[in-house]
Amino acid sequence: MSLPSVLISEVGPRDGLQSVSRTMPTAAKCAWIDRLFDAGLREIEVGSFVPAKLLPQMADVADVVRHALTKPGLTVMALVPNLRGAEAALAAGVHKISIPLSASEAHSQANVRKTREQALQDLRAITALRQERYPGARVEVGMSTAFGCTIQGTVSDDEVVWVAERAVAAGVDEVGLSDTTGMANPTQVRRLFNRVRAAIGERTGAAHMHNTRGLGLANCLAAFDVGVRTFDASQGGLGGCPYAPGASGNVVTEDLVFMFESMGIATGVDLERLMAARDALAAGLPGEALYGMTPEAGLTKGFAYADGRHPAAERLLNRIEKDCA
Amino acid sequence: MSLPSVLISEVGPRDGLQSVSRTMPTAAKCAWIDRLFDAGLREIEVGSFVPAKLLPQMADVADVVRHALTKPGLTVMALVPNLRGAEAALAAGVHKISIPLSASEAHSQANVRKTREQALQDLRAITALRQERYPGARVEVGMSTAFGCTIQGTVSDDEVVWVAERAVAAGVDEVGLSDTTGMANPTQVRRLFNRVRAAIGERTGAAHMHNTRGLGLANCLAAFDVGVRTFDASQGGLGGCPYAPGASGNVVTEDLVFMFESMGIATGVDLERLMAARDALAAGLPGEALYGMTPEAGLTKGFAYADGRHPAAERLLNRIEKDCA
Repeated sequence: MSLPSVLISEVGPRDGLQSVSRTMPTAAKCAWIDRLFDAGLREIEVGSFVPAKLLPQMADVADVVRHALTKPGLTVMALVPNLRGAEAALAAGVHKISIPLSASEAHSQANVRKTREQALQDLRAITALRQERYPGARVEVGMSTAFGCTIQGTVSDDEVVWVAERAVAAGVDEVGLSDTTGMANPTQVRRLFNRVRAAIGERTGAAHMHNTRGLGLANCLAAFDVGVRTFDASQGGLGGCPYAPGASGNVVTEDLVFMFESMGIATGVDLERLMAARDALAAGLPGEALYGMTPEAGLTKGFAYADGRHPAAERLLNRIEKDCA
Repeated sequence: MSLPSVLISEVGPRDGLQSVSRTMPTAAKCAWIDRLFDAGLREIEVGSFVPAKLLPQMADVADVVRHALTKPGLTVMALVPNLRGAEAALAAGVHKISIPLSASEAHSQANVRKTREQALQDLRAITALRQERYPGARVEVGMSTAFGCTIQGTVSDDEVVWVAERAVAAGVDEVGLSDTTGMANPTQVRRLFNRVRAAIGERTGAAHMHNTRGLGLANCLAAFDVGVRTFDASQGGLGGCPYAPGASGNVVTEDLVFMFESMGIATGVDLERLMAARDALAAGLPGEALYGMTPEAGLTKGFAYADGRHPAAERLLNRIEKDCA
């Protein structure tokens, strides 16, 4: 009997680093990716192909991709906002590109200055390029504001399903749903993933949840309950939508891995190595605030991975010495 | 059709205040309880009946109970560690007493210097007192270390079920399960509440979850999924098991209420008033760290309570002004 398992897609080197105003040096990015890979992560979004004028933090993305491509078995992903970005990313050799597409019309116009129809047209140009010149590459849409929008407020399920169907008709392989500003709740997550799956079947992609209001892990659990098996997360919770002071954005990879492994759901990730990889992130961005409850508290006494393995240094990791009433 | 609903049991004035070394002045405690009640909370654990030598923070508990009893419709709870505490609490007029009882034998001996058998014997003395002199009062057991123990590690489901059955045989009305040190995971929460319900039926009580490793809300969701309808939480996440630096203990009431209301599950709590009640807590304990993601981020644009009501000042509360890709 095989274990239930999930794929954790680490987005920190893209989503995290582009949210920070400082630029992590290329060598530090590569060292961090090394550590994430060594911890067992097998899909990493390593950067964005965007003009360096707009996001200087990502100016070295082709170099970072080149380094990441040396890792055997790693799916190297990059975010691309348009055809030009897709051309550059595919030419650099990435295995998978991710294209943001808004569920909310208001968000689409505010965020990328395109209507959703125009964005879908761009998407068709990108999938045509893929078909013609890079048939081995995968194209994913990350649907932003799928659970609500800070401009228009509520986004209807019908709109989300419509955008998902149109994206699939435009030739993408996967459509993931993103809780861009942390508005999702577990009931909605279950209902919406069920509806999207009914519409586009196995092209239903990742859950990209934010922890803005503390519901990140509960929403991931809800998504797992209805069959989602790929989850975006960011080491230390770096990035996401950090416009609320003190509120972290992305789901913390360390906490997400802890949740699944403790539930008996294999992630392939070694938690001790993953927590140790925070050192590489901290070294590249000294002083940056890192989130994560599991790294603070350590693993639990008696912790076992989904496959039954025990951590190598459990005593050292369990930092809670005393029980409470 | 009536809304699904839950009872949020606020434990901050007991669990929170006894974890803090400073003592909140009696008037400040009463003012905080006023605000919690005004926000719609209808069960509050207002203190512990323990010797003032051991917990000077709780020396004024009888005065606080007296004040809380003036609130119409409020269930006034107190924690009692033994028969002497139960006598004092019931004489003071509390509606409900909560008695900690360890699932783990090792924890029982370390925490209260009694075997579980001795603790069960004390429990029988307490329920006998109730029967004889306070038949209207309720007696609840909060089973600590139900999901794991930092001394013995894993606690078997069989042990938890055995303790629950023995507590019911000793005459208690409810047995809640506590994740004393944040070791629970959603799979275990579902399995264990199902097993306990199969054993003791409707005497299955509250889920008391901790957020030590970030899973607090996910575990509450899991408990709700299997029929739990009472949830302990603490304003600002005060208290719990704060021995891990930076790790909050109790589930944050504000985030828990946000989760349920956004799912369409009524709590009876007004989130704006609840968030404003943090001022009273902060005034009574200046400088104390308060947790909570929803208070940081504000309510979502378009937020509606389970009953369809919109917040009075939504624009002011939604502090996220900008969407992210």
